[in-house]
Amino acid sequence: MTAHLHRLPPGPVDLTSIATDATPGFEGGKKQGAAALAALADELADLQERLWAERSTGSRRRLLLVLQGMDTSGKGGVLRHTVGLVDPQGVRITSFKAPTDEEKQHYFLWRIRKALPQPGYVGVFDRSHYEDVLIVRVHGLAEPETIERRYDEINDFEAELADDGVVIVKCMLHISAAEQKERLLARLDNPDKYWKFNPGDIDERARWGDYRTAYEVALERTNTEAAPWYVVPSDKKWYRNLVVGRLLLEHLRDMELEWPPADFDVDVQRGRLVEEAPVS
Amino acid sequence: MTAHLHRLPPGPVDLTSIATDATPGFEGGKKQGAAALAALADELADLQERLWAERSTGSRRRLLLVLQGMDTSGKGGVLRHTVGLVDPQGVRITSFKAPTDEEKQHYFLWRIRKALPQPGYVGVFDRSHYEDVLIVRVHGLAEPETIERRYDEINDFEAELADDGVVIVKCMLHISAAEQKERLLARLDNPDKYWKFNPGDIDERARWGDYRTAYEVALERTNTEAAPWYVVPSDKKWYRNLVVGRLLLEHLRDMELEWPPADFDVDVQRGRLVEEAPVS
Repeated sequence: MTAHLHRLPPGPVDLTSIATDATPGFEGGKKQGAAALAALADELADLQERLWAERSTGSRRRLLLVLQGMDTSGKGGVLRHTVGLVDPQGVRITSFKAPTDEEKQHYFLWRIRKALPQPGYVGVFDRSHYEDVLIVRVHGLAEPETIERRYDEINDFEAELADDGVVIVKCMLHISAAEQKERLLARLDNPDKYWKFNPGDIDERARWGDYRTAYEVALERTNTEAAPWYVVPSDKKWYRNLVVGRLLLEHLRDMELEWPPADFDVDVQRGRLVEEAPVS
Repeated sequence: MTAHLHRLPPGPVDLTSIATDATPGFEGGKKQGAAALAALADELADLQERLWAERSTGSRRRLLLVLQGMDTSGKGGVLRHTVGLVDPQGVRITSFKAPTDEEKQHYFLWRIRKALPQPGYVGVFDRSHYEDVLIVRVHGLAEPETIERRYDEINDFEAELADDGVVIVKCMLHISAAEQKERLLARLDNPDKYWKFNPGDIDERARWGDYRTAYEVALERTNTEAAPWYVVPSDKKWYRNLVVGRLLLEHLRDMELEWPPADFDVDVQRGRLVEEAPVS
């Protein structure tokens, strides 16, 4: 399976035409999917360590995974099962909540810029600047002209990041309304999951169509060469986790990461160790 | 195996009397040790998620794992293999390097306080405020009276954290000078590892005895009830990873973490979902 087949083509977006429960490009079910994800771990670890090592050469390259999706679409599951495969030392996860009073005083990209991964890191945004054209649009939290400007501002911002060495992987986790209902009910059926449930989730759910429209506009307007969108069928959790894992892997492969050469004389240093005075 | 057997007893510390290559309390070798670590994963994940969930109740509880040890002692390996078992969403790792110019303008605990885990998190310090009584002492980077005061200041600081809900787990990864030499030579024998090697590591190694003394003093002076030290035999990497995993698990168990109760009427919310108008 090549995860790139989920790359959104340019042009208008109709999310109802993209299946949420399909598993294109993969033969097999949940068990095989979990095994396929686990099988990515070694190469993912190797490539992430090369990216991490490259920091020492002054490289500014890094990767930014942006996760967007409706409530229960599985952003947390991707963090645990897919991002969890990578050495946590080189990962920086930021979960964006409703903006704080301080954040509201600033330009919408202010808190995003503060959370960008440093060179060498795999950064992950659990929600992102896209909330500023999604929930903000659905609830009318900004003027239409302001929202209208933001699409272009996001594109300029992401192009600037790409120029500065950031490989951007934007994933929309795509679930159906029926699947969300099942997942919300499951949270209510299990006392261990009550903490994940918020009555407000049902209010948001009633605006499903408005969110779909907001997503369709955002996906179309910000689906750039520098930072294209991937729409990941996410009704099947194992498939969602696998696709994001493959996307990480394929983007890291494309970076052609090499181990940095020694910036010292290897034989001289080996000689120092071999001939050292007794150490104890 | 109960990892607590590595708890440092009160009183003077003689690191030469603590074996670096022993595997007390564990029958078996590398393969069994790796399997025993993997076997902790499910319970670790469950307990960490309970800690994470507890945030929603306003609890301030969190865990702070402090990793100290000589170069090559395996702080990075513990991060990858042990901390990597935990959901990365709830983990915050901070690696402390030589202080920046800005950090040097502040009290030595300033940068430490900024990096403390928020409630609900497992925080990990890869090096820590202990560098301010270790490398600083070995290299005479502060006045002796300043260093002398710091032991008490660290104890006061850690007691304050414990009162504020922070469970502190301090691990000294204990390796022999001979094992360090093997590990440094291994880095020079493998071009994929050159980036991990720094010629300065050999200069530091020549001060092995001074570091041991600095560790012994620091361990004795800061081995408090609120934040005791664990000395982890670390010549065998698998045993080191397993002991730190067990320490995390045992401390999380001791927190008696429960799933938060619902702060809403479960039946009412279920009814809203079951009887909702069609959503699409």
